Amino acid sequence: MNIRSLHKGWQLARRAEKMNPSVIREILKVTERPGIISLAGGLPSPLTFPVNEVAQAAARVLAQDGASALQYAASEGYGPLRDWVAEHLGRQGLQVEAAQILITTGSQQGLDLAAKVLIDAGSRILVETPTYLGALQAFAPMEPQVQSVDSDDDGVLPEDLRAKATQARFLYLLPNYQNPTGRSMSEARRQAVSTLALELGLPILEDNPYGDLWFDAPPPPSLSSRNPEGCLYLGSFSKVLSPGLRLGYLAAPKQLYPKLLQAKQAADLHTPSLNQRIVSEVLKDGFLDRHVPSIRALYKSQRDAMLAALTREFGDGELGVTRTSGIPTRPGASPITSTRAKPNHHSQVHWNRPDGGMFLWLRLPAGMDATALLPAAVAKGVAFVPGAPFFAGQADPRTLRLSFTTASVAQIDFGIHALAEAVLQTLN
Amino acid sequence: MNIRSLHKGWQLARRAEKMNPSVIREILKVTERPGIISLAGGLPSPLTFPVNEVAQAAARVLAQDGASALQYAASEGYGPLRDWVAEHLGRQGLQVEAAQILITTGSQQGLDLAAKVLIDAGSRILVETPTYLGALQAFAPMEPQVQSVDSDDDGVLPEDLRAKATQARFLYLLPNYQNPTGRSMSEARRQAVSTLALELGLPILEDNPYGDLWFDAPPPPSLSSRNPEGCLYLGSFSKVLSPGLRLGYLAAPKQLYPKLLQAKQAADLHTPSLNQRIVSEVLKDGFLDRHVPSIRALYKSQRDAMLAALTREFGDGELGVTRTSGIPTRPGASPITSTRAKPNHHSQVHWNRPDGGMFLWLRLPAGMDATALLPAAVAKGVAFVPGAPFFAGQADPRTLRLSFTTASVAQIDFGIHALAEAVLQTLN
Repeated sequence: MNIRSLHKGWQLARRAEKMNPSVIREILKVTERPGIISLAGGLPSPLTFPVNEVAQAAARVLAQDGASALQYAASEGYGPLRDWVAEHLGRQGLQVEAAQILITTGSQQGLDLAAKVLIDAGSRILVETPTYLGALQAFAPMEPQVQSVDSDDDGVLPEDLRAKATQARFLYLLPNYQNPTGRSMSEARRQAVSTLALELGLPILEDNPYGDLWFDAPPPPSLSSRNPEGCLYLGSFSKVLSPGLRLGYLAAPKQLYPKLLQAKQAADLHTPSLNQRIVSEVLKDGFLDRHVPSIRALYKSQRDAMLAALTREFGDGELGVTRTSGIPTRPGASPITSTRAKPNHHSQVHWNRPDGGMFLWLRLPAGMDATALLPAAVAKGVAFVPGAPFFAGQADPRTLRLSFTTASVAQIDFGIHALAEAVLQTLN
Repeated sequence: MNIRSLHKGWQLARRAEKMNPSVIREILKVTERPGIISLAGGLPSPLTFPVNEVAQAAARVLAQDGASALQYAASEGYGPLRDWVAEHLGRQGLQVEAAQILITTGSQQGLDLAAKVLIDAGSRILVETPTYLGALQAFAPMEPQVQSVDSDDDGVLPEDLRAKATQARFLYLLPNYQNPTGRSMSEARRQAVSTLALELGLPILEDNPYGDLWFDAPPPPSLSSRNPEGCLYLGSFSKVLSPGLRLGYLAAPKQLYPKLLQAKQAADLHTPSLNQRIVSEVLKDGFLDRHVPSIRALYKSQRDAMLAALTREFGDGELGVTRTSGIPTRPGASPITSTRAKPNHHSQVHWNRPDGGMFLWLRLPAGMDATALLPAAVAKGVAFVPGAPFFAGQADPRTLRLSFTTASVAQIDFGIHALAEAVLQTLN
């Protein structure tokens, strides 16, 4: 027997040849060493997990209806949970029937299902600049041609969207406290993009894992609520309850739902029955209305700590506490230097002031490269994620993502100080 | 604003245009009416679910390490569970390292990941005649050309396999107590197929959800154990613990593992942390060694009841209790009429005698069509699944699948009597 010929027997699909280990995953491995303050991860704070409520719900579900919780179930999802989602979305202005809700194994699976149903090899799809890396990874197996729409602090730019929309299968947007930038689409931009999409007949895939994590005021209404027939909406319980339960959902136009359901059935038959019933039980009696405000308060305090630390380390007081305008994300755009900034190297570090979510976006001085900076930062004791992998088109190598969710205020202070030391060392 | 133009905006992927509602799903909807004895479903008996053990494990996991159970986790799966799987497979003769184990959201997801990594549009893949419908559904989004290899009661026929193997990406096999037929590959056939696959450099995708459900003796060693580098092995906790937890796994050659892992990450990031830890906790101290024998005993008693009922209704004593040889599955093959059968219509009903698993396969007399029979059977109070949807090539319309797992002995007796009445009525 010829073992070599056997090894040769495996032939990879074209899409698999293109799959590469996640850059971020590799970075996280390096930076998860003990003693390193990680501002790199995208994890919710475990302090926010309702462990007791989940334990009590699990006990009740298994005691009352254990056989059903452990049996195969409908691919659409658990009825009472679908009802809850439809009502929850309705309260946020998105009027959908429970029959339009599909429970997914995390909202990541919603991206996989949407890709299967909407993307042919070579299909053009549009994304923000930068965009969520996990979405690019979910779309990749269907081999789309991904085009990056120029964006500013308010989201995608309508003029560039119009220029690129021809024959695009959909526009993928994360309007609230986006991963990686933390930015949100303004009301005016939502209106403009929604109207334009309607005019162009351009479907929108709206991803909203962070929308409930607002700090001072809720975000403007979703794009889907403005045009439910033209949008496929993805939601998640990962940021408001627990990511480890892997529970998300989608709300689909009725014409799309049957295809998404068939893709779901083929992908994993259904999302775990036990998890759906546990969450449905936890959600009873308005639990989220009591729970989510505590997450908002925690993350807001940590965002404030990070903004204060950044101001202390990199800028004058005024620069840090007002939202800096315009971190340019269009390739070739000239760097904006605040006139309020001190005329030294440090003042050329720019960052935004997210109104919610988990992330803050920072831009290093001209000539610096965040990927190159990372080893120096890790040596000083802090980790971040370089921004480059989040760009579908030409990357801005000066950008990086900072998470303020899992580090304490003291760790944030230490981490931003270490980051400043690494920047200073690199500049000098 | 032109709503019509918007509706037109959604353009389905080519693969989605081909997706159709699962025939079986539609059948099950019709037949799950109260009062109908269902021999149609593919569900494990809820009597076998270890509800108390799961409840205790969930309580322990959440009390001892709740934050980790509710947090994001590695895409590979929970370490102790991967260790358990590697050891479990090793005891069955498949020597793999824990690093080769990927925990999946049910073994259905293993099929989705394998399809993504191994199938290009137009790739030829080979399946048994008939084969598991869920696998055809999982492969379909990658648009393969599926070819059905002629099979008999012992599995795929080597001569036809050789004729069809050229440039095939893989051969998909379910060697133990197959869904839908309940048949198993004999030791001789395994040897022949394994040797031939090695000679041809033909990879094998081995799906083994039912292998632990043997009645009198364990099945012969897996194909993967004979040639680990040439096989991708899929396993499941659905039939030995609970399908509702959605926990499966794959064991992959080292060269394939990184691509499957990336596909997994893109599909749903990871399988729920809580579920993995619960099952890992339940499995401690050899629980399956005590639990699975009780499932085997239950299903064996129900299989025996079904065989006895079939003999009572359709055949002379001798025909029913010995395994009938050769339900031909090759299109055009002539029907086999046992010389021991009574020379009447009933005697022309053939069925097999599965050595394990959940299903039995039955073939109606010449000229009958199982799909056409179904309404008459439902009117008499029993449901089954017609065999036709399980054929990737030309279907044998006379075949049907009977499940003996969820019906009691009394229900099996009633159900088979009702089936006989429906057959008799149709014949007369």
